[in-house]
Amino acid sequence: MIILGIDPGIAIMGYGVIESDGNRHRLIQYGALTTAAHTPTPSRLRAIFTGVNQLMDMFMPDDVAFEELFFSKNVTTGMAVSAARGAALVAAAQRTENLYEYTPMQIKQAVTGYGKADKHQVQNMVKLLLNMREIAKPDDAADALAVAITHANSANMKNLYKIQ
Amino acid sequence: MIILGIDPGIAIMGYGVIESDGNRHRLIQYGALTTAAHTPTPSRLRAIFTGVNQLMDMFMPDDVAFEELFFSKNVTTGMAVSAARGAALVAAAQRTENLYEYTPMQIKQAVTGYGKADKHQVQNMVKLLLNMREIAKPDDAADALAVAITHANSANMKNLYKIQ
Repeated sequence: MIILGIDPGIAIMGYGVIESDGNRHRLIQYGALTTAAHTPTPSRLRAIFTGVNQLMDMFMPDDVAFEELFFSKNVTTGMAVSAARGAALVAAAQRTENLYEYTPMQIKQAVTGYGKADKHQVQNMVKLLLNMREIAKPDDAADALAVAITHANSANMKNLYKIQ
Repeated sequence: MIILGIDPGIAIMGYGVIESDGNRHRLIQYGALTTAAHTPTPSRLRAIFTGVNQLMDMFMPDDVAFEELFFSKNVTTGMAVSAARGAALVAAAQRTENLYEYTPMQIKQAVTGYGKADKHQVQNMVKLLLNMREIAKPDDAADALAVAITHANSANMKNLYKIQ
């Protein structure tokens, strides 16, 4: 099964693509869709929409797993990131109904076995599990790989995390 | 100039289309895109995206004006509505760069001359200004017409309200 993991953002949207049989995972690709800070929000959303469409075309994932947003105190940023998540969700939803979402704590738990692991521990486990030479950069891409692994490990429980 | 007004929502997204020379406004159409409560969020976002695309195709608006979201205390609803706004913005942004946003207070001020007017006063003024027999229903459609009128009245100031 091919899984696309997405860490939503307006400036940087991390993505990670893996193939998994539920036990063993193989890295296919990772990276980030970036949009420049001084471009208008509609153009940034369009770029994200187009970028996620291209990822869906290129990798034809069976399932797409998102890291759940948590709202910061900065309402303006929260709105922009929510809109970016909406643009990515719409692009993904055009190709598959299999969209899932995991909280940061679920991701830490699934990847490291410890729900309060720090960022570095998660990144190191992603590197080990995917047999990578280096930690994925940027952080957003490593986070996207982590959510893809989380989904791969969720096996029969994954319907709990389907975006309804 | 053709203006499409949008009142973003996940369950009901109001829209209103007017033609205006800045002084006189003519109603073209209004209505609402609705999505059923028990359908999954991705399908609802896809329906909104498709619906706004169809509105853009059908009316080819020069400008699109959104009512600005204000965040309620219900974070889950806020996220869904932000995602819906993102889906609508992406659809509109594929056809035009001319996207604008107005706060509820600006809309009340522009339509009734009084920034603290109540919903009913706004709806009545929309009816009068567009020479309608009845108040537009649902409320979301009346709100969408109000934001379209607000944009029409903003004339040279409108670049202040462009979505950046």
